[in-house]
Amino acid sequence: MPGNSFGQSFRITTAGESHGPGNVVIIDGVPPGLALTEEDLRGDLRRRRPGQSHIVTQRDEADEPEILSGVFEGKTTGTSLAILIRNTDQRSKDYGNIKELYRPGHADYSFDAKYGFRDYRGGGRSSARETTARVAAGAVAKKLIAEEFGGKVLAWVTQVGGIKADIADPAAVTLDHVEKTPTGEPNIVRCPDPAAAAKMITLIEECRKQGDSIGGAAEIVATGVPAGLGEPVFDKLKADLAKALFSLPAVLGVEYGIGFGCATMRGSENNDTFLSTGRKPSGDPRIETNPNRHGGMLGGISTGMPIVLRAAVKPTSSLPIEQQTVDRKGNPATVQTKGRHDPCLLPRFIPMAEAMVALVIADHWLRWKGQCRTLAERGAT
Amino acid sequence: MPGNSFGQSFRITTAGESHGPGNVVIIDGVPPGLALTEEDLRGDLRRRRPGQSHIVTQRDEADEPEILSGVFEGKTTGTSLAILIRNTDQRSKDYGNIKELYRPGHADYSFDAKYGFRDYRGGGRSSARETTARVAAGAVAKKLIAEEFGGKVLAWVTQVGGIKADIADPAAVTLDHVEKTPTGEPNIVRCPDPAAAAKMITLIEECRKQGDSIGGAAEIVATGVPAGLGEPVFDKLKADLAKALFSLPAVLGVEYGIGFGCATMRGSENNDTFLSTGRKPSGDPRIETNPNRHGGMLGGISTGMPIVLRAAVKPTSSLPIEQQTVDRKGNPATVQTKGRHDPCLLPRFIPMAEAMVALVIADHWLRWKGQCRTLAERGAT
Amino acid sequence: MPGNSFGQSFRITTAGESHGPGNVVIIDGVPPGLALTEEDLRGDLRRRRPGQSHIVTQRDEADEPEILSGVFEGKTTGTSLAILIRNTDQRSKDYGNIKELYRPGHADYSFDAKYGFRDYRGGGRSSARETTARVAAGAVAKKLIAEEFGGKVLAWVTQVGGIKADIADPAAVTLDHVEKTPTGEPNIVRCPDPAAAAKMITLIEECRKQGDSIGGAAEIVATGVPAGLGEPVFDKLKADLAKALFSLPAVLGVEYGIGFGCATMRGSENNDTFLSTGRKPSGDPRIETNPNRHGGMLGGISTGMPIVLRAAVKPTSSLPIEQQTVDRKGNPATVQTKGRHDPCLLPRFIPMAEAMVALVIADHWLRWKGQCRTLAERGAT
Amino acid sequence: MPGNSFGQSFRITTAGESHGPGNVVIIDGVPPGLALTEEDLRGDLRRRRPGQSHIVTQRDEADEPEILSGVFEGKTTGTSLAILIRNTDQRSKDYGNIKELYRPGHADYSFDAKYGFRDYRGGGRSSARETTARVAAGAVAKKLIAEEFGGKVLAWVTQVGGIKADIADPAAVTLDHVEKTPTGEPNIVRCPDPAAAAKMITLIEECRKQGDSIGGAAEIVATGVPAGLGEPVFDKLKADLAKALFSLPAVLGVEYGIGFGCATMRGSENNDTFLSTGRKPSGDPRIETNPNRHGGMLGGISTGMPIVLRAAVKPTSSLPIEQQTVDRKGNPATVQTKGRHDPCLLPRFIPMAEAMVALVIADHWLRWKGQCRTLAERGAT
Repeated sequence: MPGNSFGQSFRITTAGESHGPGNVVIIDGVPPGLALTEEDLRGDLRRRRPGQSHIVTQRDEADEPEILSGVFEGKTTGTSLAILIRNTDQRSKDYGNIKELYRPGHADYSFDAKYGFRDYRGGGRSSARETTARVAAGAVAKKLIAEEFGGKVLAWVTQVGGIKADIADPAAVTLDHVEKTPTGEPNIVRCPDPAAAAKMITLIEECRKQGDSIGGAAEIVATGVPAGLGEPVFDKLKADLAKALFSLPAVLGVEYGIGFGCATMRGSENNDTFLSTGRKPSGDPRIETNPNRHGGMLGGISTGMPIVLRAAVKPTSSLPIEQQTVDRKGNPATVQTKGRHDPCLLPRFIPMAEAMVALVIADHWLRWKGQCRTLAERGAT
Repeated sequence: MPGNSFGQSFRITTAGESHGPGNVVIIDGVPPGLALTEEDLRGDLRRRRPGQSHIVTQRDEADEPEILSGVFEGKTTGTSLAILIRNTDQRSKDYGNIKELYRPGHADYSFDAKYGFRDYRGGGRSSARETTARVAAGAVAKKLIAEEFGGKVLAWVTQVGGIKADIADPAAVTLDHVEKTPTGEPNIVRCPDPAAAAKMITLIEECRKQGDSIGGAAEIVATGVPAGLGEPVFDKLKADLAKALFSLPAVLGVEYGIGFGCATMRGSENNDTFLSTGRKPSGDPRIETNPNRHGGMLGGISTGMPIVLRAAVKPTSSLPIEQQTVDRKGNPATVQTKGRHDPCLLPRFIPMAEAMVALVIADHWLRWKGQCRTLAERGAT
Repeated sequence: MPGNSFGQSFRITTAGESHGPGNVVIIDGVPPGLALTEEDLRGDLRRRRPGQSHIVTQRDEADEPEILSGVFEGKTTGTSLAILIRNTDQRSKDYGNIKELYRPGHADYSFDAKYGFRDYRGGGRSSARETTARVAAGAVAKKLIAEEFGGKVLAWVTQVGGIKADIADPAAVTLDHVEKTPTGEPNIVRCPDPAAAAKMITLIEECRKQGDSIGGAAEIVATGVPAGLGEPVFDKLKADLAKALFSLPAVLGVEYGIGFGCATMRGSENNDTFLSTGRKPSGDPRIETNPNRHGGMLGGISTGMPIVLRAAVKPTSSLPIEQQTVDRKGNPATVQTKGRHDPCLLPRFIPMAEAMVALVIADHWLRWKGQCRTLAERGAT
Repeated sequence: MPGNSFGQSFRITTAGESHGPGNVVIIDGVPPGLALTEEDLRGDLRRRRPGQSHIVTQRDEADEPEILSGVFEGKTTGTSLAILIRNTDQRSKDYGNIKELYRPGHADYSFDAKYGFRDYRGGGRSSARETTARVAAGAVAKKLIAEEFGGKVLAWVTQVGGIKADIADPAAVTLDHVEKTPTGEPNIVRCPDPAAAAKMITLIEECRKQGDSIGGAAEIVATGVPAGLGEPVFDKLKADLAKALFSLPAVLGVEYGIGFGCATMRGSENNDTFLSTGRKPSGDPRIETNPNRHGGMLGGISTGMPIVLRAAVKPTSSLPIEQQTVDRKGNPATVQTKGRHDPCLLPRFIPMAEAMVALVIADHWLRWKGQCRTLAERGAT
């Protein structure tokens, strides 16, 4: 089965390239009756948009979404929902010179090896431009989980190069912290620690001036997710979330909870303690853990605690400076990428990461509803 | 769609619990004509087997596989191949005391939240015992990729607690380095750095004596994998590999290539250089990179370079010492896990990790063959 | 993706051959809390069992099921449920003579063309013996739909050769009509019209004596199925039901409602009239149609009326009389099938057809629950 | 998993409604290097187009396809291929009067039951307008199978009401026979028997004048399909073809080969005889059957003989004459459908049926290539 679909019950299928007519996503499995208009999609698309600030690529795309189907009189119908986002600022001629060359760090060679040739304009299907479709779909997923159980997904930049943010409580960060500075200006780097944010911007600007780029890391937190989502074996929630994040361009590492830090821990230190923090409206005890080293998932199934993930993002591979490489015939060559690129991928990575996490949670919510509800409601269990 | 299947074209579906009759796997999509007997499965099952050394759990399971279908006169038929591994040393009464309790670090609470109740004997389906089925299937995948293109997957322990192995060239490690000490004894901790291995064993023994456990990390390397495997968007090879590893119990982090180290890199430092290292039998140039910071995948598609991954594994959650928790009604309680457990999961994690990586590579090989071959062979591309 | 799985949310995967160790099914997606024991499986397995009467094959199989996983303390756990049915009366030597021959009407040649070779013992995977696994899984599906909404699936023989049953109201036929004669004897041909049944038995016996076989047709009716199951486009309920029935060996045609009879109808004759027949407990009108030419599905979605299907089943291809054919090298040859075969497939086809229909309905029920319930419950629609 | 995708390896996902902006299909898994332009899609879209003759609906749609992705410099890239066909002649106001009514024979009631409400304009997603997307995708599938192995799919009308075509040899019918009359005029009813065609047209015109509609049947033949396609158990080629055809609107029955006629056959009459008709270029014997009662598939796997299917299509449910029904509240009402409708669905059904059959064959071809080729090529089998 081909690889342009994601999810099982809330399932997206995408198509589109960097320099073709546009990108399209079909979302299948959307519950009927969800209020939805194009305006619901614009917020996250703007956060992902090129040209939004001076520290991102200057390609200028409106990224205006058109809902082609699946919505009637302002509500989802339950049938497949298609969204089209046209490309408007392609400059294919920027890429003529790389037709025969393999850009370091890019998928040029691996595409040629796979398919025998490639669309060389801006990376074609390997371009991060395909993530417009994901972000549009993610906005629908976000709306669904908010409506269904008050779920929320938020991400931010925690590291750019050697600069790390200091975030006391990930579950307390708000969208305003991520999007705005304390003085109400746009927080163009999307780091909620203002001191770190300022240094990150300086570092990114420095890299850009040098014709270079810089890596970093992001944190993603999902709150309000009910306990019980995720499947016991292969489709563990952690496994599907990791796949979701690794499917984004430039991600080289993913961890949740204490992550790689677990390697030096003893069991007696690492295990969180279960405790009861009162009663739910149903009268059942409310079970939580103290602390949340486990990152909101045990046995791959959500525990009701905040889900906390981190992703490492490599420095942009496209560089305006000259790099050594070979051409398709194996001859040594040099390449300079003249397209318009981000000196650091992190600021625009944030809405992409949120979208992917929201898609996974929406999917597992529907899966859980399908399998686990009716007999349980009747007390059969 | 439920979560007990993995893979698309080479697809496994598993069932089984810790304390039920046994574990079974159905492998669907095995190419016809592959030589296969039960003996091919026993090697990795023995590496995963409980009771294999004094630093692992002392549960005693033969883990003898029975091929139920899909093999005729010593060759795979192309139809679905089922393997059954019976449980023989369950001691369910060990678990009577945890029926009403939520063990810290375990899936007890999340299973109850999901399903309304649970099989409390040894974790039921959440037990690592389900990985017998994966390891058996992985042995078939390993055989397939070896036969089809000389592919090989090997993993080892790189870290236990604060002790890290020093491995000069991951692609040069052999199965003998992993399985045997320099003097030919069984390398029970599966770390190919003998000095580190000795210290790891001491640390694990120390933890066991204290009724505690310890975390660690593993490295997994796949060599001989042709360039071109993996799909451009969601089913990137890195994404499917990450899902595969995160689907294993206790994995909290996965990275490939330079991994989380990329956060502090500049693009000019991080990009590997393409170079031509001669000609293939076909006359085409052989393209490689120098070095292999990219871990064998670009754009989520294999480059032909060794695929290098690392996984972080938490310390065993089951502890013989007393831990605080609550029962199903929310009352405070203490729990001691009296079952037989591994003081460190890493030595037995190795064959599980290899199996999952081999399954992903076998799957993407078949996917590539299905989509990309015939028109290409005719020079249509 | 390989072809040994069926269903999406209630999904079965099977393995096993006619002359191997046995047949196994893994059912994934079973809701937790359903009461289930092996005894629940035996009823339909006995109806499918060879050797059950003198008009079916005399191979003697107990077809005793073993639940390997997914049930704990008499209830399904929600995790994957595996059932093993061992073969006990294989006589592989019956098939030595057909190793190199292509039996007319069988899959020998097509398997060779597909895989390059085949398990020639009793047809291997192409044997109807694989349907034991389906029937066991179907028994679980039947139990689920009965518990969840009182759904029921029943099939019977409507035609053997030129003899057709006269059934006034398909929705009024009971299991007793199908399984017992008016005098309480086993109704070995499973036709609820006693006069036709007697003639069918005579015809089948006549064919068997002549070393020949005879075709026929079955009717399958599902009652109590709520309106709203099925998907609008590809996974229409009628489409999944048709696939389910056509996936059974020997089925050459499927129709529902008025079926092929629609070709000569005018719209004004064919359209059923909607009418209101009272109120549901919810106060909503109860909508039915008069009559039920549409067979319980409109737009591929159930209407709440009885679902009525028919399947045509060809005469058994294996014949004790001599038939012309060729061998693998293309040389003319003759073949006599000496194995033990059914002179008419219909009596044992009944539980297979019921199983497949029940599996589809269980699957679409879970799919509907997953997508359509919560927002609707809140009145969002 | 939702129901707007079809196929496994050659997989389409569609979206779109009768009265929304348009219909879109994403085709995933297209092999790279296939020459393709929009012109390749126009032929079949024109055959499906409303307004093409006086015996079909007079809605006027250009059905102009736009390829949004997956093609570069005139060749498929191997990445997902999206095609958009905009609606241009919607007249939504035609449907205001049916907002609260359930049209007999339509999906109005079943959509309401499923989703809680519906897009009532022209049936929304249940409209046959969604088949534009299928026909566009089918044109790609047809091109692929023609290029890869010379496969061809052709359908025609065999019956309208009581009038049946007399076709001596289905495998000898050509596109010209279907599309043109002996005098070179457009064969607007798509029946290759000219005498029957003339009578069919007369009958359809008569029905239209009476405000009525008429049913019929189509035959679909695939030639040049290699032996070996299809999976042994659930994904039998016959099962996937049946699902494909039943997924089309208005199909009430499907049969292949001798079909329902098998019910009265004896095995000795029904079995086709294998014979050798020479040698293939490889030196292997060419095996065929005489005759082709088995319709090109045995054990659900293609035999290399022509695949012959038939589908029964009900009379159009929308009628300009007054019909009895109820409204959403259960009150008796009458309904007249004032939209523009086909008095007989068959002429426009032909390209839809061809598309669905071509999609299945393309899919199974890729599945076979993926699983069965390399080890076989090496003589391992």
